[in-house]
Amino acid sequence: MLSHTHLYREIHEQPAVLRRVLENESETVAALAAAIKERHIDHVIISARGTSDNAGRYAQYLLGSLNGLQVALATPSLFSIYNRPITFGNALVLGISQSGKSPDIVSVVAEARRQGKLTAALTNFPNSDLAQHSDFVINLNAGVEKAVAATKTYTSELMAIAMLSAALADEPSLWADVQQVPAAVAQTLVMDDEIGRIAPRYRYMQRCVVIGRGYNYATAFELALKMKELTYTVVEPYSSADFLHGPMAVIEQGFPVIVIAPSGMMLPKMLEFMRQMRDRGAEVIAISDDAAALAEARIPLQLPQSVPEGLSPLTTIVPGQMLAMHLAHTRDFNVDAPRGLLKVTETE
Amino acid sequence: MLSHTHLYREIHEQPAVLRRVLENESETVAALAAAIKERHIDHVIISARGTSDNAGRYAQYLLGSLNGLQVALATPSLFSIYNRPITFGNALVLGISQSGKSPDIVSVVAEARRQGKLTAALTNFPNSDLAQHSDFVINLNAGVEKAVAATKTYTSELMAIAMLSAALADEPSLWADVQQVPAAVAQTLVMDDEIGRIAPRYRYMQRCVVIGRGYNYATAFELALKMKELTYTVVEPYSSADFLHGPMAVIEQGFPVIVIAPSGMMLPKMLEFMRQMRDRGAEVIAISDDAAALAEARIPLQLPQSVPEGLSPLTTIVPGQMLAMHLAHTRDFNVDAPRGLLKVTETE
Repeated sequence: MLSHTHLYREIHEQPAVLRRVLENESETVAALAAAIKERHIDHVIISARGTSDNAGRYAQYLLGSLNGLQVALATPSLFSIYNRPITFGNALVLGISQSGKSPDIVSVVAEARRQGKLTAALTNFPNSDLAQHSDFVINLNAGVEKAVAATKTYTSELMAIAMLSAALADEPSLWADVQQVPAAVAQTLVMDDEIGRIAPRYRYMQRCVVIGRGYNYATAFELALKMKELTYTVVEPYSSADFLHGPMAVIEQGFPVIVIAPSGMMLPKMLEFMRQMRDRGAEVIAISDDAAALAEARIPLQLPQSVPEGLSPLTTIVPGQMLAMHLAHTRDFNVDAPRGLLKVTETE
Repeated sequence: MLSHTHLYREIHEQPAVLRRVLENESETVAALAAAIKERHIDHVIISARGTSDNAGRYAQYLLGSLNGLQVALATPSLFSIYNRPITFGNALVLGISQSGKSPDIVSVVAEARRQGKLTAALTNFPNSDLAQHSDFVINLNAGVEKAVAATKTYTSELMAIAMLSAALADEPSLWADVQQVPAAVAQTLVMDDEIGRIAPRYRYMQRCVVIGRGYNYATAFELALKMKELTYTVVEPYSSADFLHGPMAVIEQGFPVIVIAPSGMMLPKMLEFMRQMRDRGAEVIAISDDAAALAEARIPLQLPQSVPEGLSPLTTIVPGQMLAMHLAHTRDFNVDAPRGLLKVTETE
């Protein structure tokens, strides 16, 4: 039974994990924010792979838009393969890794520390190699994640980033918004039944694209990754703008396009994009709290609760996790142990 | 006839275009390098989309490994949609765009200039909006590119980046290497016949992945983009390391995996990766000059000439361009005007 799987339980544990991060990590986050200000850090470099890299994408937009910080995703192989480490400027170098173990991710942070730069880690293992090289360690507080596909550690990473952004901005209203997220995620979990009912429609889908932009660029990547890991479908994530610069040629009648379109400043662009896709005959699946966006979709997935756009990736990914889980279940795949994957991937 | 198409001609014009960039732009490149040193620039931010974004990925690895510069790909929507421009540190902000026209790409460079930062453009239109906002303008010298899918402007962008890297490093041997590239690309064009013969094997391929890492991470993205634009196949690019962190679950018997594996420091990792893929039954197509790599492949595509690894993306993409062209032709698609695409995509 699906509800007895680790994956199902871990998806449903997310509100509790988010509450723990809020409760246990606020002090460390505040200390990291203080160090960023004290050292006049002007950009952030993130070392991560897989799901954690998608959390890094969220940081690019959130720390960029709310805190004016340029955030770059590192190129670990420069450190681990070419042995040509770059010279960091006045940067915070942030490693994000559930296990804290992958040598290439650790190598970037270790080099930053060697250069005397400010370092920090988001990890579920506060004694890991990654944590050892970091000035500040934010614990994901997720408990053991047994399913191979990461869910609760992803939203916990997003929460830590949202907390850091709020601490840097030092605006009480942002903190109040962040506090509302666990309840909003709990609300979102009620979509599970509906998603279980629509999943069989995609039983034989072999390929699709997922579109998100701005804050939800991260969501497009993470939803696509869950679909690949769990359902073995070829799923490509895109910004709607990048998609129009070429890849749109793949669209034909019935081609499935999942669109992340919560309310906010990006919504008008996403509405326009959905209309273009419909005109070309695509099957649009929308994840949104907005009536107009849902009306554009062949399959609307309505988010029960609205949150500020900058925090929406914490809720929009949840139906994506559930869609990937139910689709894998419909296909009789093992949702806890996808073929060919291990929980900890150590790459150099 | 395929040889009468714009795309075919433009692919074959590449050696001449590269020679022109070398000849006409060396002075501007040297002046930009001098400004980077004079201002003690410690990181680079690149604003680009589509093919030009892939050139940006090359810059990440080349300027990182040879010049110790951290290179980040910008998030244009922070500027164009959210109106929350970031505060740039001591960065060079580099716009890359064939047309120099896309408003979101221009907005990043315009904001950098407003903040008094060093700005530069790589563009085929030296009077474009993008060029107007740039302190230094490197002309791609490609002539009019009539095919919708970019080929000669991509390699011209890579050449400009390689020249900038050589100018910054100020090592005569690097300049000598760069000078050899047009001839190496001309050699690579002889692969055309062979690729034309193998293309029908993939007539009904619906999906595949393209793997490259390090310098050739860019090649994986650009090859995948050409395949999508021209053949409407769903093609996903990956670093081999990222692929192992989850997406590898999609591999099943016969799943096509194109691997970019030129000789150099990354080659041992790519050989190991190819063996893993073969063990899982994948159909490996290798682009390489290395005998061991070619021996691992079901379909080996042998590069006729070796170049230093840092410059290999200028040659490895060429068989990729030809594979996409021949596959589109085999499918009776219009190679000059793919469905649904315009030459200049203006996104905000």
